[in-house]
Amino acid sequence: RAYDLVEPLHPADIADLLELLDRDDRRALAAAITDLLSSEVIAELNDYVREDMIETLDAGAVAGIAEQLETDDAVQMIEDLDDADQQAVLAELDAEDRAAIESALAYPEETAGRLMSRDFVAVPEHLTVGDVIDYLRQREATTDFWEIFVVDAAHHPVGTCELSWILTTPRTIALTDVMKRDQTLVPAAMDQEEVALMFQKYGLISAAVIDENGRLVGQMTVDDVVHIISEEAGEDTLLLSGAGEGDINEPIRDAYSSRVRWLIANLGTAVIASAIIAFFGAAIEQLVALAVLMPVVASVGGNAGTQTMAVTVRAIAMNQLTRSNTGRMLVREMRVALLNGVTIAVLVGLATGVIFTPMLGGVIALAMVINVITAGLAGVAVPVMFERLDQDPAVASSVFVTMITDSMGFFAFLGLAVAAGLAG
Amino acid sequence: RAYDLVEPLHPADIADLLELLDRDDRRALAAAITDLLSSEVIAELNDYVREDMIETLDAGAVAGIAEQLETDDAVQMIEDLDDADQQAVLAELDAEDRAAIESALAYPEETAGRLMSRDFVAVPEHLTVGDVIDYLRQREATTDFWEIFVVDAAHHPVGTCELSWILTTPRTIALTDVMKRDQTLVPAAMDQEEVALMFQKYGLISAAVIDENGRLVGQMTVDDVVHIISEEAGEDTLLLSGAGEGDINEPIRDAYSSRVRWLIANLGTAVIASAIIAFFGAAIEQLVALAVLMPVVASVGGNAGTQTMAVTVRAIAMNQLTRSNTGRMLVREMRVALLNGVTIAVLVGLATGVIFTPMLGGVIALAMVINVITAGLAGVAVPVMFERLDQDPAVASSVFVTMITDSMGFFAFLGLAVAAGLAG
Ligand SMILES: [Mg+2]
Ligand SMILES: [Mg+2]
Ligand SMILES: [Mg+2]
Ligand SMILES: [Mg+2]
Ligand SMILES: [Mg+2]
Ligand SMILES: [Mg+2]
Ligand SMILES: [Mg+2]
Ligand SMILES: [Mg+2]
Ligand SMILES: [Mg+2]
Ligand SMILES: [Mg+2]
Ligand SMILES: [Mg+2]
Ligand SMILES: [Mg+2]
Ligand SMILES: [Mg+2]
Repeated sequence: RAYDLVEPLHPADIADLLELLDRDDRRALAAAITDLLSSEVIAELNDYVREDMIETLDAGAVAGIAEQLETDDAVQMIEDLDDADQQAVLAELDAEDRAAIESALAYPEETAGRLMSRDFVAVPEHLTVGDVIDYLRQREATTDFWEIFVVDAAHHPVGTCELSWILTTPRTIALTDVMKRDQTLVPAAMDQEEVALMFQKYGLISAAVIDENGRLVGQMTVDDVVHIISEEAGEDTLLLSGAGEGDINEPIRDAYSSRVRWLIANLGTAVIASAIIAFFGAAIEQLVALAVLMPVVASVGGNAGTQTMAVTVRAIAMNQLTRSNTGRMLVREMRVALLNGVTIAVLVGLATGVIFTPMLGGVIALAMVINVITAGLAGVAVPVMFERLDQDPAVASSVFVTMITDSMGFFAFLGLAVAAGLAG
Repeated sequence: RAYDLVEPLHPADIADLLELLDRDDRRALAAAITDLLSSEVIAELNDYVREDMIETLDAGAVAGIAEQLETDDAVQMIEDLDDADQQAVLAELDAEDRAAIESALAYPEETAGRLMSRDFVAVPEHLTVGDVIDYLRQREATTDFWEIFVVDAAHHPVGTCELSWILTTPRTIALTDVMKRDQTLVPAAMDQEEVALMFQKYGLISAAVIDENGRLVGQMTVDDVVHIISEEAGEDTLLLSGAGEGDINEPIRDAYSSRVRWLIANLGTAVIASAIIAFFGAAIEQLVALAVLMPVVASVGGNAGTQTMAVTVRAIAMNQLTRSNTGRMLVREMRVALLNGVTIAVLVGLATGVIFTPMLGGVIALAMVINVITAGLAGVAVPVMFERLDQDPAVASSVFVTMITDSMGFFAFLGLAVAAGLAG
């Protein structure tokens, strides 16, 4: 029986199993193992799969699940429902959970306020280590925690204390002598991308989230941040390709609409390249070798541009590229481009010289150097420009870089051929 | 003075600052702030920058830094030195540190054995919570820890105990009643990619690393794993573009050699596309519009292929695509491709029909549908094939997918034009 096979699995594994099935099998399995579908399983599910599964439930049932979940997980489940369903679920919740979820929903998506956990341990600053241990022993256990936050009378965090420090310190020592005063505080409005970078940079396990008045309102913990790190680092691959979210569980019409817009944009830029070719139509008619070779110049240039663009986008995402070193990065990329351009030019020039004519070999070699260098320039400049315009450089850079390398490839090659008197 | 500005910074920020400077400024700053260059700063530095900085030091000085570092960080510093330098540094280390580092170096790069920390807290299973607290209080503090591992007499881990469980439990309770018996154990030979996925999936803070005999030999902690997650998720963007490691601090000759090989591969595949065009040379001579339009079919097809490939590579990296759902993913991608292909075909067909001839509009529309569907097929099949051959699908998929979409784009368009009697 399915039940016996699934029973020993970890909730995250049950979630993975449900994700691997198609909709019909998934619903059949869910029906067979209802009492194994704990809130942990629901929390671990992919957004689309969870949505598909709770679609069949009424508001009361969804609210019942939400009350089992930690607030941050409940918010994730509810935030993607349409407005009417969301209101219906909220109405079914008890007052405390509703207030917590509504306060989270008041923050924009992908901010700390939306993502934080409202469950954390905060203690006043006058305690000793022994007081803290006694307090923790009598406190009703809610969730696991890794650090405790020390707050002043106005609930402003004044320090953070790792549990290992408490456990390795005599009971009589004052908490303020054990805690770390330099804290990494996360404003509730901070974007998840920045939160992720902060956790990576400082090796954090948890961090206090503060509201606009500097009061402690929640915490971000690393087990949630690892998902954000993975998502943010992985999404650039998808965005650069024009695949949108690129989730394999995304409904087909969503995948279609996010991808087709970039294909249409690509069509638009391809028309520019076509216009350049059309301008040199007479030359091509005279020397058909030009039509045979022109995609080579565009293709290698496009690849060189994509390489540089990927390096630039990644460096921007990791906060490694700032105004202070962009110039240096550009010089570095120009040097790599020159080496690459000359290497490829020699190869393609010699081959063309042998198969066609030496003059055509010289033309394609020079066009290749020009295009690979152009590609290097565009590969740095386009993402940096988007970044400075406060746009995500991963989203639209590809289309522009490809447009530039295609156009320059055709223009340089055909233009030089005409200038060299080969045709036209 | 530089010193006063740098003095209040966190080691990770000092490391970032050094990374932003060019080599000369970096060495000048390093000289001005030598006593702020703690082992934490060295540990936080980018590999290439650290290598550049320790290059000027003799083996004794490097060994001195290594002794200050935790073993995993010392290993990271030493593993990239060439053999002679590595031996020289090892010879300068005290026996204990040398043994630890040599044992790490005995494991392959990017495995848990190489990356793990050898500093962890392990206690025997017969203790009570109170015993554990007393033990921790008298134990010499080394590093921070988040969980303790409970081991049997043969040093096999039998359970894990979060510190919050110890702190919220009365002293008299047996440790075995508090600890979690279901552990996620990491074999020392496990690849870092798998370790990263395991931490994400189960929301781990730390995990016991065991040797081939099942004995506890180290731990992986999430603060190190976040870097691995970020690196593994981010490297696919770079690998897919053919940019190798794509680190902006990589020496130019390394960047050149890792990129130029993919440009040469691209050149090779472009030659195949050129051969197809050459085969239809007579048709192009007759109807130059074919040369003008053919890159459009190839370009949009290439983009569609890249989209699907990015989705597939990401799904493989996240363990979401297995043998059980590859067929379903392929069907899904075919449906998206059909929608995309028809949309683009209508647009490009109408425009071409108006600007050129209706017949040419029909030919390019049909070629576009064929190429976008081919792109969808190749975008799934190529990475899946590499994965099944145990090759990283991010490394070489691009070259193959582009070759397929370029070739099919030219072949379908020019071939259909000839078949339709438009030219040739
Ligand atoms: Mg999962
Ligand atoms: Mg969501
Ligand atoms: Mg964001
Ligand atoms: Mg959580
Ligand atoms: Mg993002
Ligand atoms: Mg981003
Ligand atoms: Mg850093
Ligand atoms: Mg030592
Ligand atoms: Mg290394
Ligand atoms: Mg690996
Ligand atoms: Mg470490
Ligand atoms: Mg890897
Ligand atoms: Mg990988």
